[in-house]
Amino acid sequence: MISCFVQISIVFCCLICPCPAKNRSYGTPNIIIMLMDDMGWGDLGVFGQPSKETPNLDAMAAQGMLLTDFYTANPLCSPSRAALLTGRLPIRNGFYTTNAHARNAYTPQEMVGGISKEEILLPQMLKKKGYVSKIVGKWHLGHRPQYLPLEHGFDEWFGAPNCHFGPYNSSSRPNIPVYNNSEMVGRYYEEFVINKKTGESNLTQLYLEEGLDFIHRQALAQQPFLLYWAPDATHSPVYASKRFLGKSQRGRYGDAVIELDDAIGQILAWLRNLGLDNNTFVFFTSDNGAAVMSGPEESGSNGPFLCGKETTFEGGMREPAIAWWPGHIPAGTVSHQLASVVDVFTTSLTLAGISTPDDRSLDSLDLTPVLLNNSLINRPIFYYRGNEMMAVRVGPYKAHYWTWSNSWEEFNKGINFCPGQEVAGVTTHIQKEHSMQPIIFHLVRDPGEKYPINVVTKEYRDALSRISQVVELHKNTLVPGLPQLNMCDMAVMNWAPAGCEKLGKCFKAPKSQPWKCDWPH
Amino acid sequence: MISCFVQISIVFCCLICPCPAKNRSYGTPNIIIMLMDDMGWGDLGVFGQPSKETPNLDAMAAQGMLLTDFYTANPLCSPSRAALLTGRLPIRNGFYTTNAHARNAYTPQEMVGGISKEEILLPQMLKKKGYVSKIVGKWHLGHRPQYLPLEHGFDEWFGAPNCHFGPYNSSSRPNIPVYNNSEMVGRYYEEFVINKKTGESNLTQLYLEEGLDFIHRQALAQQPFLLYWAPDATHSPVYASKRFLGKSQRGRYGDAVIELDDAIGQILAWLRNLGLDNNTFVFFTSDNGAAVMSGPEESGSNGPFLCGKETTFEGGMREPAIAWWPGHIPAGTVSHQLASVVDVFTTSLTLAGISTPDDRSLDSLDLTPVLLNNSLINRPIFYYRGNEMMAVRVGPYKAHYWTWSNSWEEFNKGINFCPGQEVAGVTTHIQKEHSMQPIIFHLVRDPGEKYPINVVTKEYRDALSRISQVVELHKNTLVPGLPQLNMCDMAVMNWAPAGCEKLGKCFKAPKSQPWKCDWPH
Repeated sequence: MISCFVQISIVFCCLICPCPAKNRSYGTPNIIIMLMDDMGWGDLGVFGQPSKETPNLDAMAAQGMLLTDFYTANPLCSPSRAALLTGRLPIRNGFYTTNAHARNAYTPQEMVGGISKEEILLPQMLKKKGYVSKIVGKWHLGHRPQYLPLEHGFDEWFGAPNCHFGPYNSSSRPNIPVYNNSEMVGRYYEEFVINKKTGESNLTQLYLEEGLDFIHRQALAQQPFLLYWAPDATHSPVYASKRFLGKSQRGRYGDAVIELDDAIGQILAWLRNLGLDNNTFVFFTSDNGAAVMSGPEESGSNGPFLCGKETTFEGGMREPAIAWWPGHIPAGTVSHQLASVVDVFTTSLTLAGISTPDDRSLDSLDLTPVLLNNSLINRPIFYYRGNEMMAVRVGPYKAHYWTWSNSWEEFNKGINFCPGQEVAGVTTHIQKEHSMQPIIFHLVRDPGEKYPINVVTKEYRDALSRISQVVELHKNTLVPGLPQLNMCDMAVMNWAPAGCEKLGKCFKAPKSQPWKCDWPH
Repeated sequence: MISCFVQISIVFCCLICPCPAKNRSYGTPNIIIMLMDDMGWGDLGVFGQPSKETPNLDAMAAQGMLLTDFYTANPLCSPSRAALLTGRLPIRNGFYTTNAHARNAYTPQEMVGGISKEEILLPQMLKKKGYVSKIVGKWHLGHRPQYLPLEHGFDEWFGAPNCHFGPYNSSSRPNIPVYNNSEMVGRYYEEFVINKKTGESNLTQLYLEEGLDFIHRQALAQQPFLLYWAPDATHSPVYASKRFLGKSQRGRYGDAVIELDDAIGQILAWLRNLGLDNNTFVFFTSDNGAAVMSGPEESGSNGPFLCGKETTFEGGMREPAIAWWPGHIPAGTVSHQLASVVDVFTTSLTLAGISTPDDRSLDSLDLTPVLLNNSLINRPIFYYRGNEMMAVRVGPYKAHYWTWSNSWEEFNKGINFCPGQEVAGVTTHIQKEHSMQPIIFHLVRDPGEKYPINVVTKEYRDALSRISQVVELHKNTLVPGLPQLNMCDMAVMNWAPAGCEKLGKCFKAPKSQPWKCDWPH
């Protein structure tokens, strides 16, 4: 069964553009997914960052396709990553919570849950055509043994299961382990140093080398590969290697961006050197909007968009995106296709000549007609926060059915998801329902969601009528997955990951005392 | 005497970069200044506008230099234009008011004043080397006979003295005349149609043809020229020609931008066709920030910047800017030089090999080392609103000595210069003085002026100390010009411009009853 989105897409598609060619063969191109962490749409020169400090990404766009209207599936890290790898919205793949209404949930150390074994991940699918898959960097789909990457289709992993928060004292909370494949090789702040005072850490360089080495090995083995390159330097606490510290004119966050940009330049150059560039599809994006609540030293820019991470405004979910595949994707193209991180799943499978799973609903669109022929396919974008569909975009129109930045209580503590921004009735501090009369914006005229369309106009009525049909179909056919992010327990933290014995890095877990996680946002 | 800015610049300059070469000869290149009206920094694809509808401007940037930190001299049209043509801040050239504190003033029809005959304008200076000068489009330096372009150095003019507001009924207020040289050839909404309902007007096409024709004639005459091309299609009421209406995905404002972008592409192509491209310096910018108070159909984007037109926040004064001179300005360069519309004056004179006037203070920097060698020159940017220096930028730091968006009274009428934006204590609705402890932002880290630097930090003290010296020098040496924008009178309106008799378009002026103009903003 294909999902309702895809059904709609096909209907519209046939009206406005050539339907995607069936059974077209692209061989088995290598696939590299570069997923940034909390990087904002506005952090790239090509998307208007005034400092223009991303020459490699700007060149990548000039050699490939820039996607201006690309979205994540959730304004927070774990659900976004789960969506990328499953091609399904978090509401379907279980990466959400029902502990409270419309709350963002993720996978901190005390999280009991993780990616369900019922979910089929991209690397599992790609095995059908002999792809070897590696994840480098942040996993974030659960840190307990059964949830780790090598249990879900990846052949290799270098990185960590959780965010690089810390340092911790190891008695009340252990530091996050860094894994090489299925065994830990050290912990953050211990063997893998992050100096929170200076911001120095060589992790991005390690991740770069792991990526280059993997590419090289696969080139020699002449085996198709998936590299899921997910560095986390732009997530707070922001870090960069020594030679990049102080390089940016905009502080430590900019240093991290410059280092990532440099690394991406090296990866693309490596592909060229190895003669793999015409046979490797590279897709660059970020997991959610810039974490503007963290201030300018520790977070990026969402350009002209409203608010940031944690919210379902554009600043929380519109992502920078570049597709690169020399000789296949025409250079210097710009696409306004509404696209989503879930699409990476089906698009990758199409490129590899593999059919999508037929036993479940997918939310994932095949973007190959967009990438290769600059087609435009009509499809909606759903903006979820936890268990609630907060907003929907259809064409240029976005309707907010629910609005919320965060609670007054959190806001009054100084947690501000919309610093410097306030749109009356929109950036609300109570969960406000607008289902009877959604707030509608024309996102192309008004990307900043500042000027709600007057409800008494024909434009409003027409837009609402168009959106309502999409919403009705979506809601009527949606079967939510079992929520995986409800339970927390100190006992499940990274006390004794596999491999800890060899390193003398095991700690004793406390007694299990599970509780329903508190998700304030 | 050179101005204090320039003195400072020279001092800093010698520390950080090669001083501009003296007496370097560039021949007498043609000069084209393209000045947009209320276009915002964020309206160009190259500056991050998500629709990416300015391929010609983006290409112009790729062939020339993009200036990311270019400023106007005032967040309103008339003073900004006076600054461009005189190389002096409005506080010096008289384009300000003293009727109330820190008020924006301009030249509506009832304005008695205009550009003083004491001011020396760029075309007057360029005559020394035989330049022929034409202004196409909006003048806005006074509409009474003694203030018109041909009285101030221009040899030709096609356009109008005031904004294209209207239509008026001709009894209480005449429509704005359109001039061909020193005689009117019709009026807006009469011979020069602007359909406010459909947004259709062919004015940009007329302005384009006037520009192309002038270039052609000068090419044939082999005479160096100044073309000051100042179309006003992006000023409310926004208009476009029939073939551009509906072309943009972002509405009428976008249509106007696409038409202007197309026209600019044609002008550059024309220069190439005539073999003039290597001998013509073209500079593109806008007179002030996007008029975001007008809503998305009638105004543009200030990208990530705070507020818009009328304010001294970045959204009011940071301008899109591109310098183009094939074979001279290296292609594809980006400069973060702090630069200002006043610099166009000295830069143009340097290119023409003409010394600046030595009998007055200029605020104008010679940008040729920046444009031709990508040098960086240390210099401040002053943000004035009427008679008050509201803020100053030195390096990445901007100190607000006064903050104001507009009064509560105006705001409560629905006039909002910062829609969707609110920074506590910064976007104030009272005129708030901070001279004892300016609010300081690091504009490179925080272009949106959202995170004031903590006053108890060393960074704050160091920045303030550096800025204070600049402010002291500026204030101690500043001699304000006689304010020209204080008096209004219905009798001075465009009742009977020269040439009206031939057209039967003269009206009788009412009796003179001058009053001190009310400038609410």
